[in-house]
Amino acid sequence: MNIGILGTGMVGETIGTALVKKGHKVKLGSRTAVNSVAAAWVDMNGNNASQGTFADAATFGEVIFLCLNGEHTKNALEMAGPGSFSGKLVIDLTNPLDFSKGMPPVMIPSMSNTTSLGEQVQAYLPQAKVVKALNTVTAKLMVDASLVNGGDSNLLMCGNDNDAKQQAKEFLNEQFGWKPDNIVDLGDITAARATEAYVILWVRMMQAFGSPMFSIKIVR
Amino acid sequence: MNIGILGTGMVGETIGTALVKKGHKVKLGSRTAVNSVAAAWVDMNGNNASQGTFADAATFGEVIFLCLNGEHTKNALEMAGPGSFSGKLVIDLTNPLDFSKGMPPVMIPSMSNTTSLGEQVQAYLPQAKVVKALNTVTAKLMVDASLVNGGDSNLLMCGNDNDAKQQAKEFLNEQFGWKPDNIVDLGDITAARATEAYVILWVRMMQAFGSPMFSIKIVR
Repeated sequence: MNIGILGTGMVGETIGTALVKKGHKVKLGSRTAVNSVAAAWVDMNGNNASQGTFADAATFGEVIFLCLNGEHTKNALEMAGPGSFSGKLVIDLTNPLDFSKGMPPVMIPSMSNTTSLGEQVQAYLPQAKVVKALNTVTAKLMVDASLVNGGDSNLLMCGNDNDAKQQAKEFLNEQFGWKPDNIVDLGDITAARATEAYVILWVRMMQAFGSPMFSIKIVR
Repeated sequence: MNIGILGTGMVGETIGTALVKKGHKVKLGSRTAVNSVAAAWVDMNGNNASQGTFADAATFGEVIFLCLNGEHTKNALEMAGPGSFSGKLVIDLTNPLDFSKGMPPVMIPSMSNTTSLGEQVQAYLPQAKVVKALNTVTAKLMVDASLVNGGDSNLLMCGNDNDAKQQAKEFLNEQFGWKPDNIVDLGDITAARATEAYVILWVRMMQAFGSPMFSIKIVR
């Protein structure tokens, strides 16, 4: 499958590397057609890895991952052009966090509480099928659920399109080992307010545990 | 032990009933010395149950539970008088939630993100040892950890005073069955920003599951 990834940070590269290893063709998108960070990633990942602009990556992808800085997400999507996402599954990993005062971050007020970045992404890309997922665990765990508790932990998901959520569940199961029963569907994209807010707790737990390699299991 | 509880809602009554059953003397505090809801609770709970004003309950308690509506917490503490809390363990269960637009609630901006209700409570009661705990699970589970997963789930806690957190852990273990190893200390009271934010996710999960009887277990 052709995969487009917007964002060349650790999350985008980790997702990209995992998917190249699974045999997919992956294009990493950034602000410019040639980017030294993306070039280094392409060099390390062989013929199925490529780079381009945000628009190139979005056009290339049958499935698109948004691995963007929260603050710059809107601008990146404008650069990519909403048309490039039409009808496609867009997995949104962004979090509306402000790290400008250091750790721990705070939520960006214009993107949280009574709204969310997930909702805003869906509004910027009205023709896309946006599914919020993967934003609640560390990058290495995103692509290999088996790394904590033998693969038995929960991933939080939401989105407006039930078929797209089913497609995302199957993708995350087949590519990254997340068992479908462990992926919790919290409802429509407004539930991104909740999964994005959880990241504030996630950061505090990461600080308390001294490691990002943990997850939560919902128990009854 | 003498226990003071501020707030006569379901949370305050559930905590009070559980502690009366354990043999403690419990005074439920409200805005007025005589309150019909508190009177009904006293009638049902026998000689170790009593009611009074917020100030009465705070003065009475060796340990004090804040089971107040988030929006009215400051006013209730002002009515109680900060001196009544001096040197005491104050377990803060409040959440800065605005339900005025219905479900799900949103965070009250002046009490969240760059601050928290936990921090504000500690600031209102500078001589008290405020420990934020129990605000992340449903009332029945607060007082009986065994109700989910055989007692094996995590409770989130934070506060500035390590001795008070240890005292709270022992209390929650002895009275409510929360195993000390399952009580996660997230650090100083600023971590209340995180445990209060988590409640936004908790509400969405409650809606998705159709039940509040669940908890989370942190897995590695």
